[in-house]
Amino acid sequence: MVSWKNFDKLDSYGKLQAVKKVNLQEAMAGESGAERVKKYAVPMAAGLTYNFAAKAVDDAILGTLAELAEEQQLSEKFEELYNGAVINTGEKRLVLHQLCRGQLGKDVIADGVNKREFYTGVQANIAEFAKKVHAGEITNEAGEKFTTAVQIGIGGSDLGPRALYIALENWAKATGNFKMEAKFISNVDPDDAAAVLKSIDVAHSIFILVSKSGTTLETLTNESFVKDALKKAGLDASKHMIAVTSETSPLAKSSDYLAAFFMDDYIGGRYSSSSAVGGAVLSLAFGPEIFARILNGAAEQDKTAAEKDIFKNSSLLDALIGVYERNFLGYPETAVLPYSQALARFPAHLQQLDMESNGKSVNRFGEPVSYATGPIIFGEPGTNGQHSFYQLLHQGTDIVPMQFIGFKKSQIGSDVVIQDSTSQQKLCANVAAQIMAFACGKKDDNLNKNFVGGRPSSIIIGDQLTPESLGALLAHFENKVMFQGFVWNVNSFDQEGVQLGKLLAKKVLAHDTDGALKVYSDLLDI
Amino acid sequence: MVSWKNFDKLDSYGKLQAVKKVNLQEAMAGESGAERVKKYAVPMAAGLTYNFAAKAVDDAILGTLAELAEEQQLSEKFEELYNGAVINTGEKRLVLHQLCRGQLGKDVIADGVNKREFYTGVQANIAEFAKKVHAGEITNEAGEKFTTAVQIGIGGSDLGPRALYIALENWAKATGNFKMEAKFISNVDPDDAAAVLKSIDVAHSIFILVSKSGTTLETLTNESFVKDALKKAGLDASKHMIAVTSETSPLAKSSDYLAAFFMDDYIGGRYSSSSAVGGAVLSLAFGPEIFARILNGAAEQDKTAAEKDIFKNSSLLDALIGVYERNFLGYPETAVLPYSQALARFPAHLQQLDMESNGKSVNRFGEPVSYATGPIIFGEPGTNGQHSFYQLLHQGTDIVPMQFIGFKKSQIGSDVVIQDSTSQQKLCANVAAQIMAFACGKKDDNLNKNFVGGRPSSIIIGDQLTPESLGALLAHFENKVMFQGFVWNVNSFDQEGVQLGKLLAKKVLAHDTDGALKVYSDLLDI
Repeated sequence: MVSWKNFDKLDSYGKLQAVKKVNLQEAMAGESGAERVKKYAVPMAAGLTYNFAAKAVDDAILGTLAELAEEQQLSEKFEELYNGAVINTGEKRLVLHQLCRGQLGKDVIADGVNKREFYTGVQANIAEFAKKVHAGEITNEAGEKFTTAVQIGIGGSDLGPRALYIALENWAKATGNFKMEAKFISNVDPDDAAAVLKSIDVAHSIFILVSKSGTTLETLTNESFVKDALKKAGLDASKHMIAVTSETSPLAKSSDYLAAFFMDDYIGGRYSSSSAVGGAVLSLAFGPEIFARILNGAAEQDKTAAEKDIFKNSSLLDALIGVYERNFLGYPETAVLPYSQALARFPAHLQQLDMESNGKSVNRFGEPVSYATGPIIFGEPGTNGQHSFYQLLHQGTDIVPMQFIGFKKSQIGSDVVIQDSTSQQKLCANVAAQIMAFACGKKDDNLNKNFVGGRPSSIIIGDQLTPESLGALLAHFENKVMFQGFVWNVNSFDQEGVQLGKLLAKKVLAHDTDGALKVYSDLLDI
Repeated sequence: MVSWKNFDKLDSYGKLQAVKKVNLQEAMAGESGAERVKKYAVPMAAGLTYNFAAKAVDDAILGTLAELAEEQQLSEKFEELYNGAVINTGEKRLVLHQLCRGQLGKDVIADGVNKREFYTGVQANIAEFAKKVHAGEITNEAGEKFTTAVQIGIGGSDLGPRALYIALENWAKATGNFKMEAKFISNVDPDDAAAVLKSIDVAHSIFILVSKSGTTLETLTNESFVKDALKKAGLDASKHMIAVTSETSPLAKSSDYLAAFFMDDYIGGRYSSSSAVGGAVLSLAFGPEIFARILNGAAEQDKTAAEKDIFKNSSLLDALIGVYERNFLGYPETAVLPYSQALARFPAHLQQLDMESNGKSVNRFGEPVSYATGPIIFGEPGTNGQHSFYQLLHQGTDIVPMQFIGFKKSQIGSDVVIQDSTSQQKLCANVAAQIMAFACGKKDDNLNKNFVGGRPSSIIIGDQLTPESLGALLAHFENKVMFQGFVWNVNSFDQEGVQLGKLLAKKVLAHDTDGALKVYSDLLDI
């Protein structure tokens, strides 16, 4: 049996407070720095490598972090999770997103169903549907092929699937795997739906309504918005819409939809890209085979997350280093900086994944914790960020730990040689240069041009951003966040913090307010 | 004469350390909370209002902040700036972006030129050019109209203009002011340029090369990328490209461009949206009249920034409250949360504007400062963010101050009524609800569902996002950042922190590296 303990009650907590800090400038200099870069690397799935040489750790700190992993039973807790324990204590739910992509442990039977079979069954249904759409067997009322898939969803039904779609759009076009354009409607701002609808040919669009409960305000509102537009175009909405929802939701058996694909309570929104939530739109956009390849990459990475050795488990090590930075170096943020335009929205997905999972002040038993938990996550792709907020990262008064991601090859393969190097080489040269500039800095007597260094970063290096490496990246960060939640002893799988705003918004709309809220409502003409 | 002093040498610094903190939960409750919302508001340009009721300030703190403004001579320093003093001490330059939109003070003569006349002259040249493009007087080689404008630039040549374009794209379409689609190529990642080029009809595209020096690596590389594509399409690149550059750059008089529009050293990249950098692409996309309306909104807002009374000067007050949060409440981040999908990329622009301006550790004389300077800025539009990182904002262990932005009316005007309210009303109800949820929280015996409150926010409320209100928003934040730079006594107008990375990247590309940098380069196959 595992034992759930607060982080600051562990022996390793005290040891980490006491362990000698690393001088990163010195550690990364000269030949010893070169040795570090060669040595401080962990292989991941799909040919990726997690290199943590430029993090402010050394063998002593890593040893203590390994003790923490053992003492807090991180691997055992993961084992409990994938074997179907009720890890989401707040909502009394299993946590099963890994089962969408593989079987790490025992069969998980819940509600009388083998859940792995349930998820693969849904995948098969989606694959069959998508193939029929691509083959022109499922068409619009005029018998014409659908050309566009529009996801209607918010939060995890939007950010993850959108980030993955953008990540593979150009790859798919370059490799002949592009089947249909995908668009996304998320915000309750009416301009969001209106703009997307203006940008597409509704007569050839299929809409994917994604709502587990069938009650998400934004999503139902946007569904009505879309149905209105279809009706105005003289179209039968039920011939243009599918639902991704739970079997018990009002949407599940409604004749308003061409088809319904099921999700369940054991996969939270921010972990749902591997489920039907990501599966429907990505299978329509790129074909079910490509979606399966994303899942394969994630499954391969999940296996590494089951390794107990921190040097074989990038997610675990990344999690532990992040905890060290958060709780012992006192850094409240982490910047995610992919040197890949295709990953432009991946930081926004990680922002939800991480901040919604571990932005908690109580432990899994509902007791307050007295240490910092989840960090603030932000990021933009490089090299763009270099010309934006990197000034503060280099010379600001605060230190922000960084996570770089880089690939040797571009996706499209179209490139130019300028000044003896390709754009892809320039891109890679920049990320290498940044790591060293941040770590070691550079002395200058003019302090305005002085770089103190000592700013830690890691990098995940891959050959190319493909379905497999994208899946591995996704799983790496999901598992990292999970391990951090275990360290902090929080429930990473509920989100009670979103409820109060919803409740008050309903009161405003019902004109059931007083005091300051009424004045704000008046100022906003509600 | 103004006197430049470090923040912690001021009497008001000590007073702000000593002043009693506000209990925000109490302050915002009941009828006194309602009174606060009515009272704590500052009118801005273009019908906007800055409401700071939900910030953790009271009359005593505001009084001390007004003393700080006076003691640090913030208004006088702004006056020096707009009258043409060398405010950018590091680079020994004037700071003149306000002159693009109005004449706040004396004529500014530099390099023998009246700079206001220089900027308005460039605007007139751009307007004439754009009108000819729209009228079909300037066409492609086949005599056909250009339909797409593609900006090639990075950092300030990308983020601001792109954010403004996205902000008005739907408004322009709804009001008959949409002339041409705009696209943006920024990243040196070859997939960025390749994807944009695949998405457009190059034969009907006009490319705007934006580089002050004419030497920015990313931009010149992407120019070659584009020229290659034009050549492959059998087109004459010089008939498809214009340049926005300085008069002394190699691009200025080159026959490679249809036209060149000038910028100068007195407007930094992140402040250049009002200059030709934003002017060319926005005048082509929406017409010069719309660009002029953005400038008018900004000019009107600049006038308010010249007010000495903090209750008539939203930028100054916002700056002071931000400093109070950063240096006396110890909050290292600020979240920018526009409840407007059109402002989706406005936070990314502010991220550069703020973090690149004030992410400094030395004062304007190059001496180290011993207090925190510019905060970390991040944000996404609401309601999307509510379903993402708001969990941490509500219940995380750290407090993150927030800046909301909301509008009473949508831009497109297309809406649906669901459950007795429009989408726009739902959007506004949500932002009102969030402010109160963050400020006051809600007690629950189940601590997992408990909201502590005490999380401060402000909101800028407008009627609608139009060219004028967008210009006012832009100027508000530019001036806010400037005032904060004055408080912290840093030079907000240089960016030496970006240089080291550039230098090391060149070494990598020249294979002139050793140690860790060489190993990273090998790992990345450079």
